[in-house]
Amino acid sequence: MEIKVVRRVLDVNEKMAQQNRNLFAEKGIFVLNVMSSPGSGKTATLERTLSYIMPEIKTAVIVGDICTSNDADRLARTGVPVVQVNTDEFGGDCHLAAHVIEKAASNIDLDDIDFLIVENIGNLVCPAEFDIGEDARVVVLSVTEGEDKPLKYPLMFRECNAAILNKIDLLPYLEYDKNSTLKNIQQINPGMPVFEISATKNTGFDPWIEWLKNKVKSKQNKKS
Amino acid sequence: MEIKVVRRVLDVNEKMAQQNRNLFAEKGIFVLNVMSSPGSGKTATLERTLSYIMPEIKTAVIVGDICTSNDADRLARTGVPVVQVNTDEFGGDCHLAAHVIEKAASNIDLDDIDFLIVENIGNLVCPAEFDIGEDARVVVLSVTEGEDKPLKYPLMFRECNAAILNKIDLLPYLEYDKNSTLKNIQQINPGMPVFEISATKNTGFDPWIEWLKNKVKSKQNKKS
Repeated sequence: MEIKVVRRVLDVNEKMAQQNRNLFAEKGIFVLNVMSSPGSGKTATLERTLSYIMPEIKTAVIVGDICTSNDADRLARTGVPVVQVNTDEFGGDCHLAAHVIEKAASNIDLDDIDFLIVENIGNLVCPAEFDIGEDARVVVLSVTEGEDKPLKYPLMFRECNAAILNKIDLLPYLEYDKNSTLKNIQQINPGMPVFEISATKNTGFDPWIEWLKNKVKSKQNKKS
Repeated sequence: MEIKVVRRVLDVNEKMAQQNRNLFAEKGIFVLNVMSSPGSGKTATLERTLSYIMPEIKTAVIVGDICTSNDADRLARTGVPVVQVNTDEFGGDCHLAAHVIEKAASNIDLDDIDFLIVENIGNLVCPAEFDIGEDARVVVLSVTEGEDKPLKYPLMFRECNAAILNKIDLLPYLEYDKNSTLKNIQQINPGMPVFEISATKNTGFDPWIEWLKNKVKSKQNKKS
């Protein structure tokens, strides 16, 4: 019973996600869905990322949180248009669904951007189940979270196109086997690129920014 | 539509949770629901906790994960009975529901224990919505997750009876305002005890263990 209903919810979401995808394709906008556990450093990573790609790539951000506009406030300081979604209006939803993205995107001038970042709710489980019409998905994992997360949350790592391994500045202070993490990621999603960064120390960003710019430009080229 | 169905699921869960609660009360077992983000150190905290309370307090553990038996394997090494629940058998559920606890508890000799620990799925959102028949709830938050988590995930902090602030050994290496975290916790749940520990360095456990022992003994006394 519960499972049947969940399937129907996912079917409805799938249709709405396809509508979003068509709209974004028409506008030539590359859409990135950024997911992670709470506190892995999504917002800090995006703040830095924006500083690398602006103003070359015209970007907007949709930020999902259950409560508060803390993350949106931080990202708005970079100068990009930011729309905050608070899911406590939808019963405290643990993920962003496609209809929420459609509504949030209607507050953005889509003719004026080439890149839309969606910072999802901090949750390593549910967001991976919901297509929002994105082109690519990235999971941010911090080294303080331990080595086995890819094995324990396989759907997230299977569904993503790249992983960002954050907080590598803390490696000297942890009992942590980075190679084990990398091996676990490859076991779940062979060949997935992994970018090792420290958002607070601003290190390791170049390969990630290059990957991102290529994706955005390739989407623009498909439009023209 | 979606909301109505979710309510029904929660109603069914509530009834099953009450059955669990009655059973645990009859046996004089104190049940603790331990929740947190992925990677905050729940398992490490419980490993240490068991070393402090065993063999004085006869304990069993139910461990929830979507996949793997890593955590159960670690906890079983302490010598306590451990039951692993993998929710990928239930569609990859993001929380432990009351019926799952009922089934898992049927694999434990309830006449032989005074304390049942439930290590929930790593998720700061959904587990807080599901009563499993527990006596108390504890949220583990690590200092690497940032200061604003209590404000961003208020339900979790409102629903818990105590918070454990883990990984305090990393404070010297972080840009982190501990007092701001403590203030945010008190804003959401005034008076909630907060225990500052480092599970890896084995520091700060005494007040937490004292709190816990008092709870377990008080439940035993209610039975006799």
